Amino acid sequence: MSQLIKQFTVDGFLTASECNAQKEMPLPMLVQRLIDVATLHANAIDIGYSRLVTFGATWVLSRVTLEIERMPGVNEPYSLTTWVESVTRLYSERCFALTTADGEVIARARTMWIAINISTRRPTDLTVIPNITAVINDRDPGVERRPRLKRVEGVGEVDRYRFRTCDIDFNRHVNSTRYVELLLNHWPVDFFDENRIVMFDIQYHHEALFGQEARVAVSDPDSDGAVAIEIAGEETPFVLASMRTQPR
Amino acid sequence: MSQLIKQFTVDGFLTASECNAQKEMPLPMLVQRLIDVATLHANAIDIGYSRLVTFGATWVLSRVTLEIERMPGVNEPYSLTTWVESVTRLYSERCFALTTADGEVIARARTMWIAINISTRRPTDLTVIPNITAVINDRDPGVERRPRLKRVEGVGEVDRYRFRTCDIDFNRHVNSTRYVELLLNHWPVDFFDENRIVMFDIQYHHEALFGQEARVAVSDPDSDGAVAIEIAGEETPFVLASMRTQPR
Repeated sequence: MSQLIKQFTVDGFLTASECNAQKEMPLPMLVQRLIDVATLHANAIDIGYSRLVTFGATWVLSRVTLEIERMPGVNEPYSLTTWVESVTRLYSERCFALTTADGEVIARARTMWIAINISTRRPTDLTVIPNITAVINDRDPGVERRPRLKRVEGVGEVDRYRFRTCDIDFNRHVNSTRYVELLLNHWPVDFFDENRIVMFDIQYHHEALFGQEARVAVSDPDSDGAVAIEIAGEETPFVLASMRTQPR
Repeated sequence: MSQLIKQFTVDGFLTASECNAQKEMPLPMLVQRLIDVATLHANAIDIGYSRLVTFGATWVLSRVTLEIERMPGVNEPYSLTTWVESVTRLYSERCFALTTADGEVIARARTMWIAINISTRRPTDLTVIPNITAVINDRDPGVERRPRLKRVEGVGEVDRYRFRTCDIDFNRHVNSTRYVELLLNHWPVDFFDENRIVMFDIQYHHEALFGQEARVAVSDPDSDGAVAIEIAGEETPFVLASMRTQPR
């Protein structure tokens, strides 16, 4: 451990060109920023990709759970703070707080990361990294632990999409944020004028590749008002998600 | 003019999750960054959106011309510097240099912006803004002035795409960077393993809206090896572009 920075913050400023139609930070941009800030913090405390590779391992994002009071608006400064909540043999949880210039927390996140062996693509034991648990910070993220997401059954009409060049990332899989876009695209732009996302939970399952076709299926709302969403290939789901919106 | 900052630089660091399949900064991300850095500089010298609105006007991006030696790679720090090259009654040209940590320029850009009247959506006279020409910097961007782009004629097979929720920006038009993605998606991901983009020129014409369908047409290469690209609706082009690639 080169340094022990138990909390790491990156400041941002939301420009007009980054905003969505509702003049707010788009959800896919927030997910991208979570991943970027996680990467910068992991590098800073020397548990990043370049350290894991010396153990034949790499980080894979497994789940993102977000609770959102509001998103930053146009020309609004914001800060994104991250810390490591847990490290076990099989996974690490990393949490986030999105705050305004006044220090008010407007969104909270818990993410789950697994380390996989680069050759076998199977999970690998994180605790082989000396002293890795020393980075744990006991700050409470204020994010509910939700049950594991399930497949969406019995939905008739689905959207279809074939992954293309700009959807592909560094690992030649579909970029994590593209799934978020793809599932939001199920709704017309006007839906988000009238409703805001208050909870968003996404589990990454099988990695989609260039040229693969995805089906997007969305359930009816449950008793809490959350819809279940599945983006799947021919046989296996790429991601499962849950989203709750509220009238603005 | 609150301050006179004739050159404005933002530093960045390319994380793995931001990279494309070639482990480089994606072209759409560079275009997005140009727009963001332009916005921050315009705000800093008080010729941004919030000042123009007091004249009943807003900025509209009209053209981006890029010459690229190489893109930043994964975990590479970079800087993006911008300055105003010209201001006339009808438009302003703003240039950019993308540099490495050593100060080497690896990409250059010239962008053209027009100011339009918010009500009429017609071009408005920029020189009504007191002293606006004082921001001009005579630094040479090293970007060739290219002829105006023309429509693509006589192309048989075209791609089709319908604009969706996450394609829509602040002004409820299709986001400027989405057209860049859409035209790059004409090629398979492997094409960019073997070829790199050395010149990219895009002119913005008519603003596409949610739900509109676009056709993407690409010409054969000209004698310089550049292809002409058009993204058009039923009658009018949304954007015209030109791109030259070279074997890596």
